[in-house]
Amino acid sequence: MAALAQTKELFRNANAVCFDVDSTVIKEEGIDELAKFCGVGDAVAEMTRQAMGGSVSFRAALSERLSIIRCSREQVKKLITDHPPQLTPGIKELVDRLHQRGVKVFLISGGFHCIVEHVAAQLGIPSHHAYANRLKFYFNGEYAGFDESQPTAESGGKGKVVAHLKSNYGLQRVVMVGDGTTDMEACPPADAFIGFGGNVVRHQVKERCTWYVTSFTELVKELEKT
Amino acid sequence: MAALAQTKELFRNANAVCFDVDSTVIKEEGIDELAKFCGVGDAVAEMTRQAMGGSVSFRAALSERLSIIRCSREQVKKLITDHPPQLTPGIKELVDRLHQRGVKVFLISGGFHCIVEHVAAQLGIPSHHAYANRLKFYFNGEYAGFDESQPTAESGGKGKVVAHLKSNYGLQRVVMVGDGTTDMEACPPADAFIGFGGNVVRHQVKERCTWYVTSFTELVKELEKT
Repeated sequence: MAALAQTKELFRNANAVCFDVDSTVIKEEGIDELAKFCGVGDAVAEMTRQAMGGSVSFRAALSERLSIIRCSREQVKKLITDHPPQLTPGIKELVDRLHQRGVKVFLISGGFHCIVEHVAAQLGIPSHHAYANRLKFYFNGEYAGFDESQPTAESGGKGKVVAHLKSNYGLQRVVMVGDGTTDMEACPPADAFIGFGGNVVRHQVKERCTWYVTSFTELVKELEKT
Repeated sequence: MAALAQTKELFRNANAVCFDVDSTVIKEEGIDELAKFCGVGDAVAEMTRQAMGGSVSFRAALSERLSIIRCSREQVKKLITDHPPQLTPGIKELVDRLHQRGVKVFLISGGFHCIVEHVAAQLGIPSHHAYANRLKFYFNGEYAGFDESQPTAESGGKGKVVAHLKSNYGLQRVVMVGDGTTDMEACPPADAFIGFGGNVVRHQVKERCTWYVTSFTELVKELEKT
C-alpha cells in the first residue's frame, strides 16, 4: 500500500486526532495577534518567523518574544473579546464528525492556553484536551512570565504531548494535523501526519509530508468514505 | 551615651523608617489569614511558626506553605474585600507624623505585595515604597507560584532591601521596626532596630533588642521630644 493510501486509512481509523492551532485550526498566529494588539507586532512577527525556521530554541524564542510583548491580563482579555480567534473554514464540521465517530480530538499548541481554551470551547473540545503554554500574571494583572515546565514550551514538545496522550489514554492510532515543521516532527510518536496549507504554505512541510491538504473539507470527505 | 538613648536619638533623626507588616503594622500574619480563608489554616500556622524559628530557609518555607494554600486570584481578592488587614492602633498617626517631618516610610514584608499594597494605601505610603513577595496567577486565576527572585523571598532579604534603599535614596539613618527576628536581623544594614510587641511578643527579640515598645504611641511620644 502506498504511503498516501496508508495515511488516509490511518486517518479514517484514528482513535484520536491532534490539531495544531495557530494557522491550522485558526487563521492567525496567536502570538503575532497578541503582539500587534500590544503594539509590538513587527518585532515579534520577525522573531516568530525565525522560531519557525528552527534557528532558535523554542523556549528561548517564546521567552524573548514574551519579554517584548509583556501583555497584561487585561490586554489578553480584551484581545479575546475584541479580536476573537477566527476559526478556519470547515474545522467545526470536521471536529463534529470526528466526535460523532467517537474519535478523541486534542489541540496541541505552542501558543497560549487562554486563547486555545477559547478555541476549544467553540469547537466543543473539553478544555483538558487543550495543551498549550500558560501565561502568568501578578495580582495587579502585570505580565509575570509563563509556565516553562509545560512540554509545549520546548522544542519537540508537541511530540512529547502526543506520546503522553498515547500512553495516558491507551491510544493506538493517533494522527497529527498542522501547518508547521513542529507539527510534522510530532510524527512519530504520532502514527500519521497530515500537512495543512489552508492558511499558509510552509514549503518544508508541503514537500516532505505524505498527505498535504489545503482545506478541511478534504478531510471531511475522506471520513465519508467509511 | 547608653545604647537605648542612642537608638532613640537615631529614631528622632531618622531619614527613613522601615516597618515590618505582619504582626507589626497590621495585627495579623497575612499568610495565616490567607491560609485560614483557603481552608488550610492549621497546617500553615504550624509551618509559619517553624519558619519564624528559623529551622527552614525562608524561601523554602514560603514555597511549601503556598503550595498548600494554592490561593486563586479570586480568593485573594475576596480576602482583601471581606477581611481587610486590621491596622495596629497608633500606626496611622505614627506614619502621618513621620511623613510630616519629611521622613520616608517603607514597608518591608515577607508577606504578599497585593495585601501590603492595600495596607500602604491606607497609610498614605506610595506603593513603590512597599517591598513584599509577589504572587503569580494563570489567566484563569489559578495559583501559579511567586516571584522567587524578590529579595523578600530570601532569608536575610529584609536586610538586602534596607541596603538597597540606603544606596538608592542616599539614606544615612534608617530605622527598622518589627516584631520578628528577620526584622532584627536587618540591622545592620539598618542603623537602629526597634522591637515591637504590641501584637505578639517574640522573646528572642524582646531580650536581644535595645529598644522594645508595645505601642506605637511610645514612638509618637518620642518624636514629640524634638
